[in-house]
Amino acid sequence: MIDRRAAGAILTIDLDALASNWRRLADRLAPSGTECAGVVKADGYGLGVAPVARTLHAAGCRTFFVAQISEGIALRAALAERPAAVFVLCGLLPGTADLFAAHRLAPALSTPEQIAEWRGLSAELRAALPAPALHLDTGMRRLGLTAAEAESLLADPTALADIAPATVMTHLACADEPEHPLNAEQYDLFARLHAALPGVRGSWANSSGVFLDGAAAFEQARPGVALYGVNPTPHLPNPMAPVVRLEAPILQVRRIDAAESVGYGASHVMAAGSRVATVGVGYADGFSRALSNRGYGVLAGTRVPIVGRVSMDLTTLDVTRVPASEARPGAMIQLIGPDMPIDEVAAHAGTIAYELLTQLGRRYHRVYVGGPEGAAA
Amino acid sequence: MIDRRAAGAILTIDLDALASNWRRLADRLAPSGTECAGVVKADGYGLGVAPVARTLHAAGCRTFFVAQISEGIALRAALAERPAAVFVLCGLLPGTADLFAAHRLAPALSTPEQIAEWRGLSAELRAALPAPALHLDTGMRRLGLTAAEAESLLADPTALADIAPATVMTHLACADEPEHPLNAEQYDLFARLHAALPGVRGSWANSSGVFLDGAAAFEQARPGVALYGVNPTPHLPNPMAPVVRLEAPILQVRRIDAAESVGYGASHVMAAGSRVATVGVGYADGFSRALSNRGYGVLAGTRVPIVGRVSMDLTTLDVTRVPASEARPGAMIQLIGPDMPIDEVAAHAGTIAYELLTQLGRRYHRVYVGGPEGAAA
Repeated sequence: MIDRRAAGAILTIDLDALASNWRRLADRLAPSGTECAGVVKADGYGLGVAPVARTLHAAGCRTFFVAQISEGIALRAALAERPAAVFVLCGLLPGTADLFAAHRLAPALSTPEQIAEWRGLSAELRAALPAPALHLDTGMRRLGLTAAEAESLLADPTALADIAPATVMTHLACADEPEHPLNAEQYDLFARLHAALPGVRGSWANSSGVFLDGAAAFEQARPGVALYGVNPTPHLPNPMAPVVRLEAPILQVRRIDAAESVGYGASHVMAAGSRVATVGVGYADGFSRALSNRGYGVLAGTRVPIVGRVSMDLTTLDVTRVPASEARPGAMIQLIGPDMPIDEVAAHAGTIAYELLTQLGRRYHRVYVGGPEGAAA
Repeated sequence: MIDRRAAGAILTIDLDALASNWRRLADRLAPSGTECAGVVKADGYGLGVAPVARTLHAAGCRTFFVAQISEGIALRAALAERPAAVFVLCGLLPGTADLFAAHRLAPALSTPEQIAEWRGLSAELRAALPAPALHLDTGMRRLGLTAAEAESLLADPTALADIAPATVMTHLACADEPEHPLNAEQYDLFARLHAALPGVRGSWANSSGVFLDGAAAFEQARPGVALYGVNPTPHLPNPMAPVVRLEAPILQVRRIDAAESVGYGASHVMAAGSRVATVGVGYADGFSRALSNRGYGVLAGTRVPIVGRVSMDLTTLDVTRVPASEARPGAMIQLIGPDMPIDEVAAHAGTIAYELLTQLGRRYHRVYVGGPEGAAA
């Protein structure tokens, strides 16, 4: 834990907002009986997999997805004896079945090679493994069985019996663009393959997918980023509560006496009489260098522009519009939070909030508020 | 430690190359008697402060710089009883003197407020603290005393005696552009102020600054990024040895049967007959999303373009030009290394290698090679 006095910034993670976001999505899915799973890969989208998973579990979440085996191991340790299914999206990598078995992780089998690996396991290992998912590629062309591979599998009752999948899943490529024709294509193909697997749970929607009509047709949805407060409906107001707040105390305020450049490469020239505040947050903290001369912080209710290049450990902001009595060392500048939504920061950085979240740095003083007892322990 | 079988990629850190880079810079500085310090902030530029600092110490480095107090604490723990001076660039934040004293850290005093804090310390605390540095702002307009503040300090013998600085330092804004007029301005101002502080070590050059003539005029240089293999002379061949290698096994190869899009947003369309390989590295691993549809990996000696959007946990590459016998699951694609220099990857991502290094993810299987005995322990 980084000492608050010694940290460049304070990262506050609102576990109650996280829980309320999960409930909001679960409520939306409830009428069709669709389960709301939780995606907690990439260390719970950068917020800490242990407090995140414990909070979601207390809210009612019973199925979790991670990307990598190491994440599944960390998640299982965080959940301790809490009942939960954990799926690993990278699937059964060669020679890793013992790790899956030891930590009760279910692979999302995504290639013919992984299916062969699964079918070749010893009876003993198989008995220790939870039922896997089948990962179908319906349009990402990334991981998952192609339609042709899936169809040849469906035509082989021995193979299917051997695998005994609990879940069949796919991944949407354009769910945040409801009008994109690929959504209907992915829905149709997945619905057809899912119908050929009676009794197997279909897992179709991601965060944005929860807001598409198709989500209700399947037994499970797997929201991720929306849980963490990112807008899953980019063309509409954000239905999710903000979860993350990043605030940095001013280290120093510099009055510019004559027109002078600021920062590396002298990329920004300040007018005489302006004032520049420096905070101890930089791209080594995941505060993207693409925010150089773009974006804002909020100080005493006023937007203060980032000026000069974001450097490794420091960022400079033009605080000329804020009275000197408020723009002083120790005053807090909000860099992400209710007044500076993470989706907007991401837009300034030319990326998406997912990347900002998963890059949140290790040097912040992290504060968890709310959540069930012991969530942050 | 992430199990090698379970990791999306292998990050190899060559500690012998790190040591040889330090020696190369130290040798360059030796004729003028200029000390070569080492900057190990941001967790040793993402490579792990403990193995990095132990390796540099074994090579001969005796002065280290970090950005934040928490980094100083970690560094001191890594160095254990090895004799070394440790400077903290953020300076003496309010109420943190006890942390500096407990871990024998020297602040780089950078504001009038910090100087007042230092002068107000109890005699007991002061006795436990190493001699500080004075941080002068000669052109960054970020942290450091202005020329006017420095001059008023120099005019006050009581204040100077009270502070008893061991080192005076500044930070170059444009050292990687040798012809930039700011270099001479910063040199002249720093030389003038330094001359007024007899017996105090002057610390002027960063990595690129080591290659400027001015470096030899002062007692110390503080290279950082060049130690880690990044080119400090962007307009000339890289004099440094590569330190980092990032390689990812192919998880799956997808043959494209008809023209089809790849990845989120369907941003890239592949021709029929092409083949796409997926690796388990994404922006959550610090592999920037800005590399979407830009940049390359190297597979079996052939450059394979990144296609589609880099996603959180996965990246897709067009391996059509590599025979199917080589482009198969398990084959390693080099993403950073001797065949794909980190400076080039950074250029593809529209950033600098510093950002790629400090964002290197936590999910890699990390392998340290070379270095002194016990460096990586």
